[in-house]
Amino acid sequence: MTTSDPTGLHRVLDEPVGGSLPLPQAARRLDTRSELWPDEVRIRVERLNLDAASFRQLEAAHDGDGDAVRREVLDIVAERGKMQNPVTGSGGMLVGVVEEVGPDSPLGVKAGDRVATLVSLTLTPLVIEDGLAGWGGDSEQVPCDGYAILFGRSIAAVLPDDLAPELALSVMDVCGAPALTRRVVSERYAGGVVAVIGGGGKSGSLSLAAARDAGAGHLIGIVPTDAEADRLREAGLADEVVVADARNPVALRDAVTKSGGPADVTVVCVDVPGCEGGAILATAEQGTVIFFSMATSFSAAALGAEGLAADVTMLVGNGYVPGHAAYALDLLRANAGVRALFEGRLAQ
Amino acid sequence: MTTSDPTGLHRVLDEPVGGSLPLPQAARRLDTRSELWPDEVRIRVERLNLDAASFRQLEAAHDGDGDAVRREVLDIVAERGKMQNPVTGSGGMLVGVVEEVGPDSPLGVKAGDRVATLVSLTLTPLVIEDGLAGWGGDSEQVPCDGYAILFGRSIAAVLPDDLAPELALSVMDVCGAPALTRRVVSERYAGGVVAVIGGGGKSGSLSLAAARDAGAGHLIGIVPTDAEADRLREAGLADEVVVADARNPVALRDAVTKSGGPADVTVVCVDVPGCEGGAILATAEQGTVIFFSMATSFSAAALGAEGLAADVTMLVGNGYVPGHAAYALDLLRANAGVRALFEGRLAQ
Repeated sequence: MTTSDPTGLHRVLDEPVGGSLPLPQAARRLDTRSELWPDEVRIRVERLNLDAASFRQLEAAHDGDGDAVRREVLDIVAERGKMQNPVTGSGGMLVGVVEEVGPDSPLGVKAGDRVATLVSLTLTPLVIEDGLAGWGGDSEQVPCDGYAILFGRSIAAVLPDDLAPELALSVMDVCGAPALTRRVVSERYAGGVVAVIGGGGKSGSLSLAAARDAGAGHLIGIVPTDAEADRLREAGLADEVVVADARNPVALRDAVTKSGGPADVTVVCVDVPGCEGGAILATAEQGTVIFFSMATSFSAAALGAEGLAADVTMLVGNGYVPGHAAYALDLLRANAGVRALFEGRLAQ
Repeated sequence: MTTSDPTGLHRVLDEPVGGSLPLPQAARRLDTRSELWPDEVRIRVERLNLDAASFRQLEAAHDGDGDAVRREVLDIVAERGKMQNPVTGSGGMLVGVVEEVGPDSPLGVKAGDRVATLVSLTLTPLVIEDGLAGWGGDSEQVPCDGYAILFGRSIAAVLPDDLAPELALSVMDVCGAPALTRRVVSERYAGGVVAVIGGGGKSGSLSLAAARDAGAGHLIGIVPTDAEADRLREAGLADEVVVADARNPVALRDAVTKSGGPADVTVVCVDVPGCEGGAILATAEQGTVIFFSMATSFSAAALGAEGLAADVTMLVGNGYVPGHAAYALDLLRANAGVRALFEGRLAQ
């Protein structure tokens, strides 16, 4: 192809099927040439952050043999032109410095910026040039020299000077949740009740802070254990903190009701299956459920609401909202409770 | 239990697991006693409409032996107290006459009303009293004498006098789609562009009519074949009708763009997997995608939008919106094109 497509379609090397090419994420192999199409950006890579599920799979498959893990990552990237674990399907993100910016790039970065990519490695053309010599194959954090390409429709966030890179990255990793929570609460439910299931986690604590910032009237944090309840109470992010099993629909409904519910907005931030029914029951008529858990079942949500005659709006948690990374970092800066929870997790 | 729960939890006979009972849909066995709790309604059943996927499975499992199919349905209902196919997990709906209404029932029906239940048979207590003697086991339509129970949070729609029951039922079966489409278009996108993927089908044609009714400015119907395009053009429900493979993201985007898109609202009404990427790409920034297909993958939608940096709102198509059945029937009555499409399908 001589012209580029903002989705990166021009770098897909697969054979067309039925006259059509897959998008880069679904493609088997990407073109990694270093020359840029006019709307692209090239990054000099410093570090890959492998997706946790992907790294665990690789480590288990090779019985913890770090050299074998490293060889497999090198093989995958050499063969596919991107880092996409063939078993888990997942990738991760990367940190690097902007090397060249095409004249038509809409990303708003300039050469020399230190950035994290907020689109998955599964769709990012990548060349590793150092054989990952600095990595023992024993951690998700992969020191790396090489380059990567961003398309017109990609996202790169400039790393802030005032926060440790690990802290900034762990915030950016979940930054879609607070941004969407803010939007939903401020547009439709100012002054309302917001319940966050998994309120003590990364995306959950940021969502509580975002809901407060957006004008929520009453905040309920639901957590699975007493220990997590203590930590969330200490962080001061919720008006009520309650321990409940999110997989038990009636118990969750009753817990939220007793804590000031039902909720006008329920945000699901726990990665366990089977939370759909409880989230729906905990939500008021005309309320909204935002599903951020990748363990959400579409049909369980759709049929569950219908079976309960529940007039609730249900949102698929889109990880992209304009300005999401900057907003999440601002929440962390402004909120000692959020910061303490994040730093506590990094220290573990 | 001595008091009832609007979800029907009081009729779940399963052993509690970890102190909690499943909701009726997930339960193995329901209490079918005919006496009502105060918020319940009892229906004298005239006919069961088995879910199409469930009936196909039963027919195949018994090599088309109608007697064996009938025996299995009788066994399932006797054992579980509800009709839920153990393989497909699905149920269906029923038609009958209201026999008794508890004093606290919120459903708004009265004894003698002829109704269809709009909640699934998978959560409806059911007793069959005639051994299904009038059914050959050879059709989804099952003449039946017996009774069923509706809970506080159930939905029953009174069948209209002016439409054939089969026609009314086939409209009610998909009535959530037009109701939610109307709400989304009228609240946020009056005058905007609406694209309906699968615009020639039952839920798709009603969604097109609802979008028009709600004030959409330009309607695009996407269909898979030329024959379906001809039928949809004849029905006059869309301003543009275009043939495209919804599983091909770039082809779908280009087709919608050329027909007056991108869409402010994209409604996905085709039951094939892999339409998430195309629907997202066909939608304008700040637009909304409504997924009504049960083949939708939650993670494909969430990760797809993030990977494309697409600022779109994505809704799980909730089959329940207050007033949905009456609204869908009104659309059919008012719209000769919709009616012709529905009657054409029933005649096949």
